[in-house]
Amino acid sequence: MLHKSIPNNAKLVFKGVIFEVWQWQQKMYDGTFATFERLKRPDTAIVISVVKDKIIILAQEQPDVPDPFTSLPGGRCNSKENPLDAAKRELLEETGYESNDWTLWNEQNPVGKIDWTIYTYIAKDCIHKQPQKLDSGEKIKTELISFDEFLNLATDKRFSEKELGIQLFKARIDKKAKQELYDQIFS
Amino acid sequence: MLHKSIPNNAKLVFKGVIFEVWQWQQKMYDGTFATFERLKRPDTAIVISVVKDKIIILAQEQPDVPDPFTSLPGGRCNSKENPLDAAKRELLEETGYESNDWTLWNEQNPVGKIDWTIYTYIAKDCIHKQPQKLDSGEKIKTELISFDEFLNLATDKRFSEKELGIQLFKARIDKKAKQELYDQIFS
Repeated sequence: MLHKSIPNNAKLVFKGVIFEVWQWQQKMYDGTFATFERLKRPDTAIVISVVKDKIIILAQEQPDVPDPFTSLPGGRCNSKENPLDAAKRELLEETGYESNDWTLWNEQNPVGKIDWTIYTYIAKDCIHKQPQKLDSGEKIKTELISFDEFLNLATDKRFSEKELGIQLFKARIDKKAKQELYDQIFS
Repeated sequence: MLHKSIPNNAKLVFKGVIFEVWQWQQKMYDGTFATFERLKRPDTAIVISVVKDKIIILAQEQPDVPDPFTSLPGGRCNSKENPLDAAKRELLEETGYESNDWTLWNEQNPVGKIDWTIYTYIAKDCIHKQPQKLDSGEKIKTELISFDEFLNLATDKRFSEKELGIQLFKARIDKKAKQELYDQIFS
C-alpha cells in the first residue's frame, strides 16, 4: 500500500479514544500552503493460529455491530506494546491458546491517510492453556476450520480481515500459491 | 465489508479538514458503558473510463507523497454532491474527458471504523473535451492502457485503488471472470 506517513512538522490537533488527528501546512506545487490532515491509530496484530491441521477463527459479536462476524484472533497493540507481544496476548485472551513458534507473515498499511499497520503472524503448534478472558465488549466463540475453509473466507462478506483477501484468494485458485501458503502455515 | 455505521446518539467531537470524529456511550454486555469512537470522511468516487479499447489511468504526484503512484481518475465528493456528479467532475478535471454512459460498478466500505464509501463507476465512450484543470496539490499525467495492463494493477504496489484488487485479480487468473469484466467495461 502507498504508505503516507505523518511528517515531522505535523501537530496533534485531536486525540480521541482510538484515533489521533494530525495536521500540517503543506507547501503546494505553486508555492502556496494548504492544511493537510492525516490520522494515527494503534497498530493491529492478528494471528493465523494452527492447531494440528486446523486454523482457529472467531465467531464474534460486538455491542455496536448489528450482526455476528468472523475474524482471526487479534486486536489493537497497547501503548508501547510491540506487535508480536500484542499478537501473543490477544491469542491467549481471545482463545486461551499459546504458541512457541511465531512468524511474521504479512505487514500492511490498509489506508493511505491513516498511519496504521496490520501485522499478521502465523502461530504454529498452538496449545490450549486456559479459558478465554473476554472484556465486556466481546462475545467470542472459537472454531477450528480446515485450510480450504480458511481460503474460502477470502470472499466472505462477514470476514473482517479484508486486507488478507488477495493472498487467500490467490491460494484458492492457484495450485502453486496454495501449496506455498499451506507449507508456510502447516510445515 | 462490515459496515459499522455511526449511531444516532453519537456526538461530533472533532471536525478536521477531511475527517470528523464521532463518539458515543456504548452499553456493553455487562451493562456498563464505554466511549466508542468512529470517523466520517467524504465519500470517494472513482472512474474506470473507456476510450475505444483502452482505459484511462493517472500517473500522479502529490506534494506530501515521496514517490509517484498510479490511480484511476476520481476523488472526494464535495459537500452535498452525489457520487455520480463527483465522478463526472473529477474525470473532467483530471483528464479533460467526458462520457454520457455511466454505470455504478462497485460500492465498498473499506474500513470498519470509518463511515466512508468508495463508489466505482464505468464511463464508456469517453471523449476528450478540454485540457485538465488541476489544483495546486496535483501533478497528473493521463495514460491509456490495455485491459490486460489494467488487470495487472491488481498486485501493483503503486496502484492506489487497493479495494478493487480482488476483482481485478480474479479476472486476471479466471477466464470466465475476465470475459465478464471485459464485457462490463467494453461492450
